[in-house]
Amino acid sequence: MTREGDSSGLTLADVQAARQRIAAHVRPTPLLPSAALAAVVGAPVYLKCENLQRTGSFKIRGAHHMLAVRSPEAVVAASAGNHAQGVALAASERGIRATVVMPRTAPLAKQRATRGYGAEVILVDGGLSDAIGHAQGLAAEHGWLFVPPFDAPEIVAGQGGVGLEVLEQLPECKTVLVPAGGGGLLAGVALALKSQRPALRVVGVQSAAMPGIVASRAAHAPTTVERARTVADGVAVAGPSALTHGLIERYVDDLVAVPEGDIASAVVFLLERARLVVEGAGALGVAALRGGFVRPDGPVVVIVSGGNIDVSLLGRLVQRGLAADGRQRRVTFAAANVPGELALITATLAAGGVNVIEVGHDLTPPDLPVGVARLTLRVEVADDDAYAQLSARLRDAGFAAGAQVDFLTPAAAASRF
Amino acid sequence: MTREGDSSGLTLADVQAARQRIAAHVRPTPLLPSAALAAVVGAPVYLKCENLQRTGSFKIRGAHHMLAVRSPEAVVAASAGNHAQGVALAASERGIRATVVMPRTAPLAKQRATRGYGAEVILVDGGLSDAIGHAQGLAAEHGWLFVPPFDAPEIVAGQGGVGLEVLEQLPECKTVLVPAGGGGLLAGVALALKSQRPALRVVGVQSAAMPGIVASRAAHAPTTVERARTVADGVAVAGPSALTHGLIERYVDDLVAVPEGDIASAVVFLLERARLVVEGAGALGVAALRGGFVRPDGPVVVIVSGGNIDVSLLGRLVQRGLAADGRQRRVTFAAANVPGELALITATLAAGGVNVIEVGHDLTPPDLPVGVARLTLRVEVADDDAYAQLSARLRDAGFAAGAQVDFLTPAAAASRF
Repeated sequence: MTREGDSSGLTLADVQAARQRIAAHVRPTPLLPSAALAAVVGAPVYLKCENLQRTGSFKIRGAHHMLAVRSPEAVVAASAGNHAQGVALAASERGIRATVVMPRTAPLAKQRATRGYGAEVILVDGGLSDAIGHAQGLAAEHGWLFVPPFDAPEIVAGQGGVGLEVLEQLPECKTVLVPAGGGGLLAGVALALKSQRPALRVVGVQSAAMPGIVASRAAHAPTTVERARTVADGVAVAGPSALTHGLIERYVDDLVAVPEGDIASAVVFLLERARLVVEGAGALGVAALRGGFVRPDGPVVVIVSGGNIDVSLLGRLVQRGLAADGRQRRVTFAAANVPGELALITATLAAGGVNVIEVGHDLTPPDLPVGVARLTLRVEVADDDAYAQLSARLRDAGFAAGAQVDFLTPAAAASRF
Repeated sequence: MTREGDSSGLTLADVQAARQRIAAHVRPTPLLPSAALAAVVGAPVYLKCENLQRTGSFKIRGAHHMLAVRSPEAVVAASAGNHAQGVALAASERGIRATVVMPRTAPLAKQRATRGYGAEVILVDGGLSDAIGHAQGLAAEHGWLFVPPFDAPEIVAGQGGVGLEVLEQLPECKTVLVPAGGGGLLAGVALALKSQRPALRVVGVQSAAMPGIVASRAAHAPTTVERARTVADGVAVAGPSALTHGLIERYVDDLVAVPEGDIASAVVFLLERARLVVEGAGALGVAALRGGFVRPDGPVVVIVSGGNIDVSLLGRLVQRGLAADGRQRRVTFAAANVPGELALITATLAAGGVNVIEVGHDLTPPDLPVGVARLTLRVEVADDDAYAQLSARLRDAGFAAGAQVDFLTPAAAASRF
C-alpha cells in the first residue's frame, strides 16, 4: 500500500520530552493482566488503565503538555467530555483561566466535573462542531489559546506518553490495540512504540458508527464521515486531521471498526470480569478482541483510554447485557381475573429460587379473551439450564404452554380459551 | 483498656514467609491516589485495590497459602462468595480437587465463577452456617482438608501480605482502614503493619448490621451477633474466632461500624469517581471516611478488599444513588383525559433539555376527580438548580402547582378541580 508521508516532524524525542514536562501532573497508570481476556484470545492480555488516570482519561496528558509548552494566560476548548475535563484540570493547576464550550446535550456528570475542575462552562445548541466554532470565535475575540482535542503536535506528543509507559511495563508485548476517533492518542502511541520496536504491531480500533480513520486510510487522505450516534461517544469524531492522518499512515499497522453491540457488551464485560468502569470508547480494544476483529500475536496490550461513562447509561448497558446474556428473561402468563393467580405464579417462582425484578399486569389485553389478564414478569436466572428448570417447575405446578403467552395458569387453562 | 492477649504465636516473619510462598500466584495490587476522597478528608487518600486481585478479592492469598503449607489431596470449603472463588482457583492451580458448599441463595454470578475455576459446587438450603456444617461433614467423611474462611493461622498469615505491600508502596502512610467480618484480613494486615510501625493507626471497619468484632472488643472476648441483611455481604459474619479476636485486640487501634446507606453510597461513589467496581464489603473504608466515622491523620490508605458485586445489585444501587443525589426525580402531573396532554408535558420537558426515563400513567386515580389522570414521570436533572429551572419552565408554560400532584396541566387547571 502506498502511504502518504508524515510531515509532522514529530519524533520519539518529542514524546519523551513531553513526558518529562508533565511528569508531576500525570499518573503512570497500572497495566493489569486479564485472565478472562487471555482465555478468549489464547495469549496473555494486559489492560493499560488510562481510565484510572487523573480526570478519568488520557486527555489530561496532551492538555497539560500543550499548556506547559505554550504558557498562555487563558485557554478555551470545545468538548463533550474527556478533553473538557483534561483542559479544565490542567489549566487550574497552572493558574490559567479556562473556558470550555460544551454541547447542551453533553452528559450532566461531565458538565459538573468540568465545572468542578474550575473551568467556566458555556453550553451551546447543536453538536461538537458548533461548540468548536463557538470556542474558536471566543479565542479570536479575546486572544485566548484554543486547545484542540487532537490536532496539535503538543497534544499528540503528550498522549504518546502512554506508549512509553507500555513498553517499560511490558517490554515483551507484541500487539497493542489503541482506541481512535480523531487519532491523537493513536498517532502519539504508535509513534512512541514503532520508533522503538518496528516489529511490534499497532492496531487502531474505531467505532463502526464513525470510522473516519478507516475511511482516511482507504482514501489515502484525511477523510470525514457523517455524524452518527455511538455508545463510544468519546470517539464520535468526523475524522483525523492532516497531522494525525500522516502519523497514523506512517506508524499504524492495522485499523479495525467495531459495531455498537460489541462495544456495549465489552463495557459490561469489563465491569463484571475486570472490576473496571470503562466508557464505550475505552472499551473499543476489548470489543475488538472479544468480537474476533483482531487476531493478535503474543502478549497483547489493550489501551483502555477512559472511564467517564454516565452512570445512568452504565445502568442501562448492564440491564441490556444481562438480557443479552440470558440472565434476565421476560416470562408471560395468561391468568384468569380471579383472586390468587398472581400469588400462585409468584409462589411457584419463589419455590424455584427465581428472583422477580419487575411485574407488569395488563388486565384487558385486546388479543386475549375477556376475563383473562396478561402478566409479564422479568426474572433473573443463572443460565439456559436454570430457565429450563423453571419451565419444568411451572409445568409440574399445572401451568400449560400457551401460544400468545409463555404459560397459562391452571385456572386459565381450565377455562380452555 | 484491658485487652486479652494474642496467643496465636503468629509473627511478622510468618506473614513475610507466606508472601514468598504464594508470590507466583498472587498479584501485587495497585495503590491508587483518590483526589475525590482527598477532598473529603483533607489529606492524601490512597486505595489499595484488592478488587483488582485475581478472583476479584484478597481471599486468594490466604487460600493459596493454606494449600501451600498443608499440601492436601482434596479440599472442601463453605462460602457465599469470595472465599469460594479463592479456594477454587488456588486448588485448581495446585492440582487439588476442590468442593465448595454454597447457600442456595448465593449470587448466581459467584456460583458460576466458582464452577469456572474448576471446583464442584454443592448448593444447600439455609445460610452460611448450614453450608459450613455440610462442608465440615464432607471433610470428616472423606478425609478432605476443610479450608476455613478466616479461622486458621495460615489464612491470616496469607492475608497479611496486603499490609506488607501497603508499607512498601506508601512508607509514609499514617492511617490504614481495613474492612472486617471474621477478621482474617484485619488481623493479618494489622500484624504486618504494627509489627513494623507501632505508631501507625490501624482501624477496622464493619457493617453496622453485623458488628461482631466491635461487640467482641466491648466484651473483651469473641462474641457473635445475630445474622442480618447487609449490602456488605462479604462481611456478613457472626463474629471473630479466638484467633482473629486475639490478634485484633493486640494490633488494631480502633473499630467503627458503618450503616447500610453509607455503604451503598460508597459503592456508587467508587464507581463514578474512582472508576472502580467495588462490592459492599470492599467499600466499608471509603464509607467510613465519607461518613465521618473516622477522622484520619496524614496519608490514609483504604483497603478495598473486593469487587465481586452482582451486576444487577450494582444497577439497583446506581438507581438508588442517583435518586438520593437528587439527579433522578419523580414529577407528577394532574392531566385532563383529553388528547395532547402527554404531548404538552413531554414537549415542555424536552424544551428544557430534560431526559425522561420512565412514564407512569394512572387513568383513574381514586384521589383525583373523574376525568383527571395522574402522570408520573421519572426524569434526570443535573442538580437542585436544574430542578428549580424545570419547575420555572413548567410554570411559564401555564402549568400550576397542585396539592396532590406537583403540577396541574393548563387544561386540568382550567377545570378548577
